[in-house]
Amino acid sequence: MLELRLVQGSLLKKVLEAIKDLVNDANFDCSATGFSLQAMDSSHVALVALLLRSEGFEHYRCDRNISMGMNLNNMSKMLKCAGNDDIITIKADDGSDTVTFMFESPTQDKIADFEMKLMDIDSEHLGIPEAEYHAIVRMPSSEFQRICKDLSSIGDTVVISVTKEGVKFSTRGDIGTANIVCRQNTTVDKPEEATVIEMNEPVSLTFALRYMNSFTKATPLSNTVTISLSSELPVVVEYKIAEMGYIRFYLAPKIEEDEDETKPQA
Amino acid sequence: MLELRLVQGSLLKKVLEAIKDLVNDANFDCSATGFSLQAMDSSHVALVALLLRSEGFEHYRCDRNISMGMNLNNMSKMLKCAGNDDIITIKADDGSDTVTFMFESPTQDKIADFEMKLMDIDSEHLGIPEAEYHAIVRMPSSEFQRICKDLSSIGDTVVISVTKEGVKFSTRGDIGTANIVCRQNTTVDKPEEATVIEMNEPVSLTFALRYMNSFTKATPLSNTVTISLSSELPVVVEYKIAEMGYIRFYLAPKIEEDEDETKPQA
Amino acid sequence: MLELRLVQGSLLKKVLEAIKDLVNDANFDCSATGFSLQAMDSSHVALVALLLRSEGFEHYRCDRNISMGMNLNNMSKMLKCAGNDDIITIKADDGSDTVTFMFESPTQDKIADFEMKLMDIDSEHLGIPEAEYHAIVRMPSSEFQRICKDLSSIGDTVVISVTKEGVKFSTRGDIGTANIVCRQNTTVDKPEEATVIEMNEPVSLTFALRYMNSFTKATPLSNTVTISLSSELPVVVEYKIAEMGYIRFYLAPKIEEDEDETKPQA
Repeated sequence: MLELRLVQGSLLKKVLEAIKDLVNDANFDCSATGFSLQAMDSSHVALVALLLRSEGFEHYRCDRNISMGMNLNNMSKMLKCAGNDDIITIKADDGSDTVTFMFESPTQDKIADFEMKLMDIDSEHLGIPEAEYHAIVRMPSSEFQRICKDLSSIGDTVVISVTKEGVKFSTRGDIGTANIVCRQNTTVDKPEEATVIEMNEPVSLTFALRYMNSFTKATPLSNTVTISLSSELPVVVEYKIAEMGYIRFYLAPKIEEDEDETKPQA
Repeated sequence: MLELRLVQGSLLKKVLEAIKDLVNDANFDCSATGFSLQAMDSSHVALVALLLRSEGFEHYRCDRNISMGMNLNNMSKMLKCAGNDDIITIKADDGSDTVTFMFESPTQDKIADFEMKLMDIDSEHLGIPEAEYHAIVRMPSSEFQRICKDLSSIGDTVVISVTKEGVKFSTRGDIGTANIVCRQNTTVDKPEEATVIEMNEPVSLTFALRYMNSFTKATPLSNTVTISLSSELPVVVEYKIAEMGYIRFYLAPKIEEDEDETKPQA
Repeated sequence: MLELRLVQGSLLKKVLEAIKDLVNDANFDCSATGFSLQAMDSSHVALVALLLRSEGFEHYRCDRNISMGMNLNNMSKMLKCAGNDDIITIKADDGSDTVTFMFESPTQDKIADFEMKLMDIDSEHLGIPEAEYHAIVRMPSSEFQRICKDLSSIGDTVVISVTKEGVKFSTRGDIGTANIVCRQNTTVDKPEEATVIEMNEPVSLTFALRYMNSFTKATPLSNTVTISLSSELPVVVEYKIAEMGYIRFYLAPKIEEDEDETKPQA
């Protein structure tokens, strides 16, 4: 028997909005630790990892580890029916092939339950080793979103270059070139407005803007985003979910040849 | 000669928005009592009845009963040109085949008149007998609108079931099932937020969500909606128009066979 | 060398939004006097004239007169990447075939530079003689925008008639006719809300609403619009740009025959 009660139900709504365009079907894994998901995007280029720790739920009952395959688009349709202030409870009986989402309005006047069929989804769980990164940039998530969106109007890929002074986002397209530099800045009124750069060595990597834009759909989940870069590793774009966990997106950098090859498709 | 001056012109704009998608052409009937309309929707399934009582107008002159056939889409185009604070006057000369809508801005600096050709429309006026209903639900109109919209993302029909404790809206579709229960609740800060159930006997009826959603376009006209149900009668969905009258929508319930037949079309 | 620094960068963003749908490619002319543009719309019916005087820039360096051909759509794409509070600097080296737009955020934490290729555009500079107008109407720009939009839902052309009492905008279409009269009104709380009519002789002219609607895209640049009319001259629709200059749109009136010919196309 599974019963997870989340007072701040809007969190789950935002999580679905963040990943449903990237991933069609996925297994949600439920254990004593928490409610988690790991999935490749439908073109098998990017990886999403979600964790909502059990402590973040008002009530968390998970008698045995269970993996529930869901169509994220259908799940999102159901969660959209929850009010932003609703309490959401996820329920499943042992051996059942359905999951129930219950929405309670804050005044308890309106109670909704939505039942969805589960799916069998093959998935290998990839081990993601903890790694050392050459550079870690923390910046306001809205700023990162704006930069990815702006550069997309010019080009298809972004070069992210980190030096001690700042992080530079560059692109090039048919109509011209663009460079946006964000300087390290820790003297701000609110800590979430800071741009903080931890750098061991300079790094410069190229990524497809299409995926970066997709990742920024998680912006409503957190005021800040952390971008971890190493020349040999996929970038990690992480949005912390307050007191509960995170969404992390992994994307391999494009190698030079890749970048040139993809140009004519622009 | 007809001259009807409505200080709160935005009311008429909202009335048109509420009915123009349901009804293409209709006769507006004008008499000493008021300005009214009764029309079937274009697929002859639902019925709309509108009444704006003469007392609600600042000036109401209607020398003789007159029936004016209008294309509601064109009328809506013209009324959209009225500002929300404008005073609207409807004018028609005896025997004229046109109607004039005059819009005066609150400061009287801007005066617009829009003239529209009238149409000849055959229509039989249906007598709608006052009936006893098994159950009458009054609830916030925005809540009813939200429920109809939410259920539409899951299924095509809604089962409305009333018991003493509350009213339940249910649907079923390819991706799953949904039930939303609103409890009777009269201890609210504002009377328009109450959900009040008057019930003589339990009732459970099935309706096409498409029409229900259409009816909820009248939501801006009133904070509350009243849903009157009997197992032998069409449901009445009524929006009161403050101090002037009402819009009522009538829709026959689907019988069980209907419901099953329509499923494959989902 | 060219370097023009505009503290209120949003002005340039609004200028582009105002003209980019009307004009595809155009030369921006830069001289000691200011930054200007004169261009016919792509169907060679309307003329746009823009002036941003050098005094309006925080820093204005233009070593020699230069004409820079730009694709306004691409330029607009780049300017959209500037924040509304950003400082915009336009830079070009002598003999270079590119122009650079630099955007600085108010806190200087984010610096972007966008480089765009220049184009060779043939253009004859038309002399626009200062003229005497029969009637000059100054009115709130939002009101003029609303009127043009409203009349477009009824007809294709607008007749603008000025008398001492007011200005009348009329149209006629398949669904009926519309007349909107704005009275002279100078007793308003804020001067920008006034409707002021200077008239030497009555005038009544017909224009294509399509162009008028296009001109009103400049509405965000100014609270008021000035419409100058003479029976022998194109109308001038002018939006002043505070302390910097103006955008003026010129459009020849339709002659009676024109108006009739175009009707069947409605």
